[in-house]
Amino acid sequence: MTNEPLLPGSTIGILGAGQLGKMLTQSAQKMGYHVHVFDTKEACTFPIAHKSVLGDFSDKDQVLNFAQEVDSLTYEFENINAEVLEDLSNQDYFIQGAKLLTISKNRLREKKWLNAIGTPTVPYRPVNNLDELNQASADLGLPIVLKTVELGYDGKGQVLIKDESDLTDQADDIKSILDSGGVAEAFCDFDYEASVIVARNPQGEIECFPPTVNIHRAGILCASYSSSQLKEELFDDIKAVATTIAKESDLVGVCGVELFVTKDQELIVNEIAPRPHNSGHYSIEACNLSQFDQHILAITNRELIEPRLVQPTLSVNILGQHLDHLGELVAKFPQAIVHIYDKGEGRTQRKMGHFTLSFESEDQIAETLKDPFLQDWFDQVG
Amino acid sequence: MTNEPLLPGSTIGILGAGQLGKMLTQSAQKMGYHVHVFDTKEACTFPIAHKSVLGDFSDKDQVLNFAQEVDSLTYEFENINAEVLEDLSNQDYFIQGAKLLTISKNRLREKKWLNAIGTPTVPYRPVNNLDELNQASADLGLPIVLKTVELGYDGKGQVLIKDESDLTDQADDIKSILDSGGVAEAFCDFDYEASVIVARNPQGEIECFPPTVNIHRAGILCASYSSSQLKEELFDDIKAVATTIAKESDLVGVCGVELFVTKDQELIVNEIAPRPHNSGHYSIEACNLSQFDQHILAITNRELIEPRLVQPTLSVNILGQHLDHLGELVAKFPQAIVHIYDKGEGRTQRKMGHFTLSFESEDQIAETLKDPFLQDWFDQVG
Repeated sequence: MTNEPLLPGSTIGILGAGQLGKMLTQSAQKMGYHVHVFDTKEACTFPIAHKSVLGDFSDKDQVLNFAQEVDSLTYEFENINAEVLEDLSNQDYFIQGAKLLTISKNRLREKKWLNAIGTPTVPYRPVNNLDELNQASADLGLPIVLKTVELGYDGKGQVLIKDESDLTDQADDIKSILDSGGVAEAFCDFDYEASVIVARNPQGEIECFPPTVNIHRAGILCASYSSSQLKEELFDDIKAVATTIAKESDLVGVCGVELFVTKDQELIVNEIAPRPHNSGHYSIEACNLSQFDQHILAITNRELIEPRLVQPTLSVNILGQHLDHLGELVAKFPQAIVHIYDKGEGRTQRKMGHFTLSFESEDQIAETLKDPFLQDWFDQVG
Repeated sequence: MTNEPLLPGSTIGILGAGQLGKMLTQSAQKMGYHVHVFDTKEACTFPIAHKSVLGDFSDKDQVLNFAQEVDSLTYEFENINAEVLEDLSNQDYFIQGAKLLTISKNRLREKKWLNAIGTPTVPYRPVNNLDELNQASADLGLPIVLKTVELGYDGKGQVLIKDESDLTDQADDIKSILDSGGVAEAFCDFDYEASVIVARNPQGEIECFPPTVNIHRAGILCASYSSSQLKEELFDDIKAVATTIAKESDLVGVCGVELFVTKDQELIVNEIAPRPHNSGHYSIEACNLSQFDQHILAITNRELIEPRLVQPTLSVNILGQHLDHLGELVAKFPQAIVHIYDKGEGRTQRKMGHFTLSFESEDQIAETLKDPFLQDWFDQVG
């Protein structure tokens, strides 16, 4: 691999063409790169990419053919099969590499690795049958969260087991997880959830975006915001955790790190996503550069830019059920910057866009979060 | 025309597909609109638009066919012939309208109109032959600037006549301008040049971006920056001029207003551009929304957003002759956000991109402008 930066005019290939691919594409095109995308269906990046290819992520030949036309390959889709990833890993154009993706696509492997590099996670047990689940419940104490080891996102493939009755009430979902391979995690009674976007380039430069506080409903991220609730010392601790993850995984590109902040203000890593992350969308308006800009800089061998918060910003997701309320939204918040991903049908709980509200002071975010309109917006999620 | 906002999913058509079209397209696509573009050649917006059409701007049928497929038509190219514009003006999809474009595409008409609405310009005379030029020189006093009445941009179609000898030294250029119809303008010995982007929507809301100071070389804009050199009172005066122009012209969309600030701190309007303007590119990083975002809001019948400066920013153009120095540029200014338009061949004096440098304080802009690297960058322009 050369250390020369890839100059504008070079071509970036993205596996996956959803909203993360679209926002990556817009950053790359702004900087003068050409963008090719690959997906199984005509996803929302297809109309804006320089070239769009329909294919199957598990078909090695199709993926390699796509990749051979680009100068730097990246992905927004994490469930690429191991054999394809291994083949890609030997290619010069895969500057990003697959080390962190290989770790993070398996929850057990991820937690083991996080603990090995000294990063705290919740206690957990692998569980593949009811006996193991009962043993895990006894070891960890209820409640526990049962998750699939692979796949699963936005609360899918997860069951919260609060007491014995859940074992029968949710028997079908539990069986399905156990059959595909599960992990039981101790329930973390956190104070709040936070996350940080960390970036690293091939030369080893590491930069963190300002961490955010996150609001979830029904396992889905509803809102993220830059907040002084994350006291300065916690900022530094969060950045230290993210920096360790970036360094030890030889990260190239950006990675989202989701954390629980316990009532004792301790940090526990919930999960990592080796790609731009929903909680980092706020950076488009909040910072001097976005997580998507930074990712493109990293995977084109360029110097990273130190992120700075330029305006306190609240980012709120727009799901399928919200789409009919866009008129009310802009009437309520005329200053909102509304991003719509152009994903077609707005099914319930499907991420269709997000909007950001920026303020002169962080106090205004706290005030805004109390607004009945926003509370109702969140209630529509769960 | 309906007053209902055009919601995301609607289609915006742009006449012209250069860098202004590209940045408009990126804003529109971010918000979920579809974008069609029309140009005489495969310009830089073609690869990213939802649909691209090759055609001739003076072919009424081609333009109307293109326009009939879109929900809101706009333009980045000003030299659309009068007959085509007239036909468009009656169409519901031309929310933007052609009033200001019709005024501004003719320098004589523009100055007459500006004076009629109480906006000062330099003294001027129409000149179509040498006798009229001599009379204008006598009336206005040398030096004068001779310009074509229509067309002409970036210093093209202009001759500075300082003394009698220029009449013979530049005889060919002068004859060419006089033959096509010229205007002689008194030379303004200004203190500095400024500009402002003003926006208006069909409901009559008007918003101004923070004005910038501009640096020109050889008639080409080199740099723009938000500056306290424009004292608060002058901000208000500049915004008042721009607001009058927006109101009196029934502007829909954004308009760039270029001004001279005289040594007595008086404002003189140099020219107006009824579209996003090069001096407003800084808004992408400097403000809570960009001039391109605001234009899309206006032409889709949506509420405007009040622009705020979120970080002091210097925007510097990248011309063809600069392209070989991109490596030095990012080494010198690692924090630069570099926009490359993807226009192909980098001919001398052709605008190929721009970069922005943002700072925590405006003092740092003044310091940076003294940097020999930037001075040399400007010297390469003229």
